[in-house]
Amino acid sequence: MKTLTAREMFTKASFIQWMGIELQELENGVCRASMKIRSDMLQHDGFVHAGILTTLADHCCGGSVGSLLKPGEHVLTAEFKSSFLRAATSPEVFCIAVCLKRGKSAAFTEAKVYSGKEMKDDQLLATLSSTLVIRVIA
Amino acid sequence: MKTLTAREMFTKASFIQWMGIELQELENGVCRASMKIRSDMLQHDGFVHAGILTTLADHCCGGSVGSLLKPGEHVLTAEFKSSFLRAATSPEVFCIAVCLKRGKSAAFTEAKVYSGKEMKDDQLLATLSSTLVIRVIA
Amino acid sequence: MKTLTAREMFTKASFIQWMGIELQELENGVCRASMKIRSDMLQHDGFVHAGILTTLADHCCGGSVGSLLKPGEHVLTAEFKSSFLRAATSPEVFCIAVCLKRGKSAAFTEAKVYSGKEMKDDQLLATLSSTLVIRVIA
Amino acid sequence: MKTLTAREMFTKASFIQWMGIELQELENGVCRASMKIRSDMLQHDGFVHAGILTTLADHCCGGSVGSLLKPGEHVLTAEFKSSFLRAATSPEVFCIAVCLKRGKSAAFTEAKVYSGKEMKDDQLLATLSSTLVIRVIA
Repeated sequence: MKTLTAREMFTKASFIQWMGIELQELENGVCRASMKIRSDMLQHDGFVHAGILTTLADHCCGGSVGSLLKPGEHVLTAEFKSSFLRAATSPEVFCIAVCLKRGKSAAFTEAKVYSGKEMKDDQLLATLSSTLVIRVIA
Repeated sequence: MKTLTAREMFTKASFIQWMGIELQELENGVCRASMKIRSDMLQHDGFVHAGILTTLADHCCGGSVGSLLKPGEHVLTAEFKSSFLRAATSPEVFCIAVCLKRGKSAAFTEAKVYSGKEMKDDQLLATLSSTLVIRVIA
Repeated sequence: MKTLTAREMFTKASFIQWMGIELQELENGVCRASMKIRSDMLQHDGFVHAGILTTLADHCCGGSVGSLLKPGEHVLTAEFKSSFLRAATSPEVFCIAVCLKRGKSAAFTEAKVYSGKEMKDDQLLATLSSTLVIRVIA
Repeated sequence: MKTLTAREMFTKASFIQWMGIELQELENGVCRASMKIRSDMLQHDGFVHAGILTTLADHCCGGSVGSLLKPGEHVLTAEFKSSFLRAATSPEVFCIAVCLKRGKSAAFTEAKVYSGKEMKDDQLLATLSSTLVIRVIA
């Protein structure tokens, strides 16, 4: 089984494509991506669903680890925790994820999702931290 | 502002409708719902995206608290944590969520997502625990 | 390096001994232990510190996985999440932890901490879920 | 009931005193504290117990919110998640906690615990994120 590149982790994921996530940076344990909130992504109060923001953050965390893998290594999310601080004020959101530690068989990451185009504290929508399992599969 | 019923939390959420989540039980702090995994819900390895299972579990947790609210009360997820134990072996998954405690301004819930139609330990795909904030808005 | 038995994970941990944790059951992925809350374990409002309840729950989760290990295997907590539902009404608390899945290099557990001596819903003080990493070290 | 100052949240907590936690900064939503790892704080492999690092981080998070409260307001941890990245290489550890958002009835914080005396990425031992409930009690 051929392992994917970090970039293919985005292009080959149908749900990520459906969400319209666009990669902006992906190297050295850092992943940055943006997306537009659409009317089919909402919860019952008219806000973007927590599951959408979480998917963006989780996938960027996976990408941040993916950027540190060697061919034959594979990464999968074991768990994540997301917190939801405030509602988005812009239809555009972006995420920046960082791999805090890439061990032999586990990695730790964290991500922040912001409304708009800049990393402003009062536009911080969600935070996520995750643990990922790394396996040699090829 | 008129608050929604627990059932409307599902019918009025566009992303929940997109996912095709079907309510099966919603009362007394318990929420059960099922859905079918589609080809536009996958991550790059061909498995259902963690964000999809998390959305199902989070929304059912919200429903479990919603079933305990009085008119004028409103609930919103503050945070959740999901763990991913194994890949689904069936296109059908279901979730059962329970409100562990409904306080005045906060509630605690937990959910389990299973593959197939029965609560079998070896078909447990994901677990989620969440904290929700309750506000009187009307 | 000789690996420890699940029971030694309790007897050889100085902080667990300081806390006075007493094992009551430890086999087949289940760990149950109790302890008494003392006056040197409190936070500023006079309640048992969240870190004490978390230590009890985390260590029982480690024990639940430890009970499933083969000689030479070693387990370490990668992360946990704890929720705190209510204050204890009895000086005695107990924890029951279960290993939900023991994979090759990772395990998932969950624990509940109760006030008193029985598993009563209205005496549930805290819940914890954790991810643990398993390594072969001998 | 008179509410405590943020500083009293440390001096009046018996378990925090037992741990020997020393406050270094506490204002404007930021809390920094240090402590020395002792031989009665260890788990079975001889490392500092995850519950000790978690207590340090949780309490600093509480302090970070406490520094933003008005008289009569009270804060309590609803939940936290901790990740454990590596073992300490120094007997001294310190924590820096920041309140990301202080809402009316809930607050979100995050903390990092480092080995030694400096914030070095390769000395990052643990991360914690927590949700706290704020109540007016006086």
